[in-house]
Amino acid sequence: MVPAGVAPWKEGLLKALSKNKGLANAKYVQIATVRPDGRPSNRTVVFRGFLRQITNDLTFITDRRAKKVAEIAANPWAEVCWYFPNSREQYRLGGSLTIVDETCADEVLAKARRDTWHNISATGREQFSWPDPGLPRNQDRSEYDISMTEEESAIAAKEFCLMVLKVTEVDYLLLKGNTRHVFDIISGPEGTLEWQETDVNP
Amino acid sequence: MVPAGVAPWKEGLLKALSKNKGLANAKYVQIATVRPDGRPSNRTVVFRGFLRQITNDLTFITDRRAKKVAEIAANPWAEVCWYFPNSREQYRLGGSLTIVDETCADEVLAKARRDTWHNISATGREQFSWPDPGLPRNQDRSEYDISMTEEESAIAAKEFCLMVLKVTEVDYLLLKGNTRHVFDIISGPEGTLEWQETDVNP
Repeated sequence: MVPAGVAPWKEGLLKALSKNKGLANAKYVQIATVRPDGRPSNRTVVFRGFLRQITNDLTFITDRRAKKVAEIAANPWAEVCWYFPNSREQYRLGGSLTIVDETCADEVLAKARRDTWHNISATGREQFSWPDPGLPRNQDRSEYDISMTEEESAIAAKEFCLMVLKVTEVDYLLLKGNTRHVFDIISGPEGTLEWQETDVNP
Repeated sequence: MVPAGVAPWKEGLLKALSKNKGLANAKYVQIATVRPDGRPSNRTVVFRGFLRQITNDLTFITDRRAKKVAEIAANPWAEVCWYFPNSREQYRLGGSLTIVDETCADEVLAKARRDTWHNISATGREQFSWPDPGLPRNQDRSEYDISMTEEESAIAAKEFCLMVLKVTEVDYLLLKGNTRHVFDIISGPEGTLEWQETDVNP
């Protein structure tokens, strides 16, 4: 569970995005998960915005056949590391992941999945019809020559998943001035959950 | 154990570094480890070169008081994610970490630690005399006003550690052209270890 309302770290993250928007990779983050053998995995994914904009949940996309989907089913915990080169800031965002696929019964999440599909490029959509990611490659490259009709492109591909990170802890570092703030969730005086912000040594 | 000789992925990684050297953050990578509670951690660290240049082992530095040192003592597995913005390439480098601190009895590693200390800036060195990273901050900022004498600066700080990644698997992705190669270690025909390179679907 997470506190209601806008998280105290969200405004800073949006500002960092704005300060770095000139960079092609400002929305590229690294997301770590844990494999079934207990070793970590780490790869770059593209931030696709906050779920319904008003929440504090980060969204990404993935192919259902990617290894991380099976990893997340066994262990949903993840940590995103987001480094902003222009402003020299780092956000570490820890929390649990939910995979939203075509069978999702939650209408809010199912709609978010469909909306995200419509926001990705035609080239981005075609990748979900490529051969299984990670498997040895067939040298016949025609398997990659996908051209979807407008009708096909309108419907989210079977393999297309939205990946939603519900953030429960944040570690913010500003290299300029060596500022570091940690945000975690505590029980407030009335038993409701609250974000707590602590100024810590860098 | 890893195969003898230069790994087949090393040349490409050095080329990527060279193609991106104009970027201040070309040597910034994200390294994921697993916490004792089974959740992943992920943070940015700076690549400090290959151990003794001739090996395939990546080096980084850390403060002995950083959380990751305790995490690595319990679970040495790590995955580095290294994204090169100019050439649009990603290297994922998995393997096990060794922490080299001032008690290290291996003379080769101990020398590498001392050499790395001499290669970091005066400002970089002073950080190892700062208050414990991650602990609540004392508002008296004078604790950060360290000025080392030349003599003090010449000797690696007690808290200064070299972090060595022995790579056992590599996943290389070139976004331009969607090329993906996986490198892993297999037993060769004569029982010696060898690197195997596989062309896989992106």
